[in-house]
Amino acid sequence: MVRTTKKVSKAKKKPASASQKGISLRLALAQVNALVGGFKANAEKVKSVCTKARKMGADVVLFPELMVTGYPPEDLLLKKSFIEDCQKTLKKIASATRGLTIVVGFAEQQGEHLYNSAALICDGKHVATARKMLLPNYGVFDEKRYFIEGDEPLRFSLKGAQIGLTICEDIWEESGPGKTLSRHIDLLLNISSSPYHKGKAQSRRQMIVQRAKSYKCPIAYVNLVGGQDELVFDGHSLVVEANGEILAQGNSFEEEIIYTDIALSPKPGKTESSKILSVKAPASLTKFKNFVQLPICVYREKPEEEEIYSALVLGTRDYIRKNGFSKVVLGLSGGIDSSLTAAVAVDALGPQNVVGVLMPSPHSSKGSIDDSLALAKNLNIKTFTFPIVPAMKAYEYILKETFKDTDSGLAEENLQARIRGNLLMALSNKFGGMVLTTGNKSEISMGYCTLYGDMAGGFAVIKDVPKVLVYELCEWLNRDKIIIPKNVLTKEPSAELRPDQLDTDSLPPYDLLDPVLLRYVEEDASVDEIKVKGLSKAEIQRIARLVDLNEYKRRQGPPGVKITPKAFGKDRRLPITSSSK
Amino acid sequence: MVRTTKKVSKAKKKPASASQKGISLRLALAQVNALVGGFKANAEKVKSVCTKARKMGADVVLFPELMVTGYPPEDLLLKKSFIEDCQKTLKKIASATRGLTIVVGFAEQQGEHLYNSAALICDGKHVATARKMLLPNYGVFDEKRYFIEGDEPLRFSLKGAQIGLTICEDIWEESGPGKTLSRHIDLLLNISSSPYHKGKAQSRRQMIVQRAKSYKCPIAYVNLVGGQDELVFDGHSLVVEANGEILAQGNSFEEEIIYTDIALSPKPGKTESSKILSVKAPASLTKFKNFVQLPICVYREKPEEEEIYSALVLGTRDYIRKNGFSKVVLGLSGGIDSSLTAAVAVDALGPQNVVGVLMPSPHSSKGSIDDSLALAKNLNIKTFTFPIVPAMKAYEYILKETFKDTDSGLAEENLQARIRGNLLMALSNKFGGMVLTTGNKSEISMGYCTLYGDMAGGFAVIKDVPKVLVYELCEWLNRDKIIIPKNVLTKEPSAELRPDQLDTDSLPPYDLLDPVLLRYVEEDASVDEIKVKGLSKAEIQRIARLVDLNEYKRRQGPPGVKITPKAFGKDRRLPITSSSK
Repeated sequence: MVRTTKKVSKAKKKPASASQKGISLRLALAQVNALVGGFKANAEKVKSVCTKARKMGADVVLFPELMVTGYPPEDLLLKKSFIEDCQKTLKKIASATRGLTIVVGFAEQQGEHLYNSAALICDGKHVATARKMLLPNYGVFDEKRYFIEGDEPLRFSLKGAQIGLTICEDIWEESGPGKTLSRHIDLLLNISSSPYHKGKAQSRRQMIVQRAKSYKCPIAYVNLVGGQDELVFDGHSLVVEANGEILAQGNSFEEEIIYTDIALSPKPGKTESSKILSVKAPASLTKFKNFVQLPICVYREKPEEEEIYSALVLGTRDYIRKNGFSKVVLGLSGGIDSSLTAAVAVDALGPQNVVGVLMPSPHSSKGSIDDSLALAKNLNIKTFTFPIVPAMKAYEYILKETFKDTDSGLAEENLQARIRGNLLMALSNKFGGMVLTTGNKSEISMGYCTLYGDMAGGFAVIKDVPKVLVYELCEWLNRDKIIIPKNVLTKEPSAELRPDQLDTDSLPPYDLLDPVLLRYVEEDASVDEIKVKGLSKAEIQRIARLVDLNEYKRRQGPPGVKITPKAFGKDRRLPITSSSK
Repeated sequence: MVRTTKKVSKAKKKPASASQKGISLRLALAQVNALVGGFKANAEKVKSVCTKARKMGADVVLFPELMVTGYPPEDLLLKKSFIEDCQKTLKKIASATRGLTIVVGFAEQQGEHLYNSAALICDGKHVATARKMLLPNYGVFDEKRYFIEGDEPLRFSLKGAQIGLTICEDIWEESGPGKTLSRHIDLLLNISSSPYHKGKAQSRRQMIVQRAKSYKCPIAYVNLVGGQDELVFDGHSLVVEANGEILAQGNSFEEEIIYTDIALSPKPGKTESSKILSVKAPASLTKFKNFVQLPICVYREKPEEEEIYSALVLGTRDYIRKNGFSKVVLGLSGGIDSSLTAAVAVDALGPQNVVGVLMPSPHSSKGSIDDSLALAKNLNIKTFTFPIVPAMKAYEYILKETFKDTDSGLAEENLQARIRGNLLMALSNKFGGMVLTTGNKSEISMGYCTLYGDMAGGFAVIKDVPKVLVYELCEWLNRDKIIIPKNVLTKEPSAELRPDQLDTDSLPPYDLLDPVLLRYVEEDASVDEIKVKGLSKAEIQRIARLVDLNEYKRRQGPPGVKITPKAFGKDRRLPITSSSK
């Protein structure tokens, strides 16, 4: 958990000191996993990091945005007692962090107003507060529901260096508070809780590098790590020089403390003003500083598939564990979706905590059994097998009179899926594991799934992963040895709810469907704006219509990890009732 | 649909004219039901009202906030094509409303910005636009997600009267745009889409009366009517004199056009300034005006039970119909919740469109059958009866090996509820009616309900009605003749999932539970703040804990009509994962 970059350790070898013309600061970026509402756990985490950082002689330790409450606390922020608990916890944290300067995010009540704030705590005293000035209220964010904008940025001086302090969104706008601050400071701090999606780490890093260059000011950026309901935070904390050079970088989806020595050269005219809060470096710091060998660790850039897979693993692990579960159960159909879901579950929780359930019907192919068992063997997980025919017959008997003279169709197909859902839930109710659902984003978009059937469960691991990406992730998983059986990757997708059924009976091929869904669901394009070779306008129209019509199903599905720029859930808030259908 | 108040018709008898020292304006408040995304239907509605209002010689016709798009359009507003359709529809409306002055709500794109605006359309021309200045972003509202605040209020002159125009929230703050405007105007207009909850109509009326008095200015306020997903809009449009006297009032939960002649006395110093937009009264108005006998109708104040019941009826009817359904199916347990739900459904859709399903198990009491059949007879609805034993046995058989040596418990109880859910969904899939769920707010709060079992369905009619209120509504329903069988009202509530089960085995008595839930769920009180005679702190703690723990269930439940100040759903956005549990 304790790391720094190679570059930093090099810098270490010729330590800058305050007596030279420059100033050297040792930063500790605490890229940690906070728990929403977990005041006690979060305070313990802060204290434990501080104990380590003190030994390392850190001049300032940065914790993520809303570290004290966890992020996002949502409507817990409307509870008076929650805000009081936050205040009490902050006080406890302050008194336990003597001998250090730390920055920690908390929810600040001032009269009727609530602010998303960062406390500057020096040697056990809460000496100043920065208030977030730009409040995101788009996508998954609802910050204007809770907070008031701060009206001026905070700067303070530490060891002769002028330092500015901002919070998350504040740095995303070029002309935001960072710009005003940058004229007066030697270092810009930003504490964030910035959620992950595919490509976000790269664009975030690019943005921060660009800010550092345009502000002509080094930036230290710390980000949360961990899963919270639909969101997963990727870490990827950063220290960037004024010339845009990356000095240190946190790894993705892992807790770590990133130590960096940064040499600052106060520009002329930036001398301490009496109007600026001056923070005294606690005495204990100098005592430690010169004796410490900073740990070395190199940041490792992950390929995109690994990054996404890691997001799914951490998002799933945290959802299961933070909700008090340790085990999961899921249906194995021999298809690629349940195979990927099982693999993620095993990496999240260990094979001993994952149970696969085979529930064949007369429409199940032999492959569906063999492939499921092969997968279970590769993953080393336990399985149950429950043929569902007796339940199918029971419903048939109960409904015989009412359904006579009707053709077998959707009702009968959905009953099979629902019998399976019932069996999984019965196992969960009896033995306590959470049911994972296995639907991907393409089928959830189209409503190609059964409410209370395959949609029944507590967490939908790959609900935001389009089908084509499901294949790509499985192929990446198989890069060294076969985990997902070959046959799973090559056979035609089928729900196996009637004889010889194939997904392509109802849906366009996934390599044509997914680009349409990307444009329609994630980019809000209209049917007229979407062009995909191989699909007619009528086919695109039909896809859009099915996406709209099935909003009601998605509304009743469990949460799952957001990995795209726009996931179903609080990221995309469409009415169910709408004649745009 | 065409109404005015008695008071108004009296005013009519001595018509004021512009030649007298005062000015008389004939207002038409179009309290109508718009459809989200229903551009064509909404435009037709505007035109049809205008045809009538033209004949009545109305000087100005007011339509609700966002009439063109329906309210709330949510993330449809992020689609470029949706905004374009809105713009096109507004143009069509304008050209079809010659000979009239109308005010109609629409979403206005200006460059990168979107405004929640009101178009002032005069004789077919869109002559001016008011932009909403106060954007609600709390409770069920997310307006800052979409809109930018307008920066100044609109006023215009019509027939010599100075008129100010505001939108919904603008009037809720005493010191808001109405205050600035009021110094310069003779009449304040407000177009709203203000959703219902218990007591809202009264507090809204009180607020408007108070504003009129404090602004010393008459107010004409039009409100939307109709159901949209969780929300129902109650109408209750109002015209209030400067002294606070109510001149006209729309009825609740009904579409109507409220005509009012209002006499205005321009105060000195309020003469037309060249800077103020002057709207010419279309020539056709004078032609009609003196020949028209305004229709008479008296506003009827409903008792609270009737008001709530009407909200449930309209919310249910609109959800079913606007989503393309005409029929519903629901389980009848012989309990009070399914009885009330069935009664609402019958009033919403007619008895021919409601099917009740009895699904007895060995744990069902004789009363559960008899009472259900008695209810069905009273409501004149069709029933099916499906004993569920064969399915119970099938699951028992399938799970025998796995469940051996375990005690019968939650898994087995939930299976019964899920078999029933499956049967209802099978009927729905086969014959096309939407399944209604029957859970009340008290049990949904506590998680005393089965996911994919009794929670399975498209709409949860009474999900926001606490149990004690369920009883009150049923007693009100029975005021003239018995609709809910007596036995249903008097027997002890039971889920009948095991022998001799009673709700009070798991829950405190509802008359103690409901006050705790009110404080905890609707008022965000902490356990320490809640005192209910008859319950210990430990019991209150347990209730709060169960509410928190069961957030995951509610997240997968269907929507239902909001009738309290804080409903589950977008009104109350709590994380599932939270250690405050």
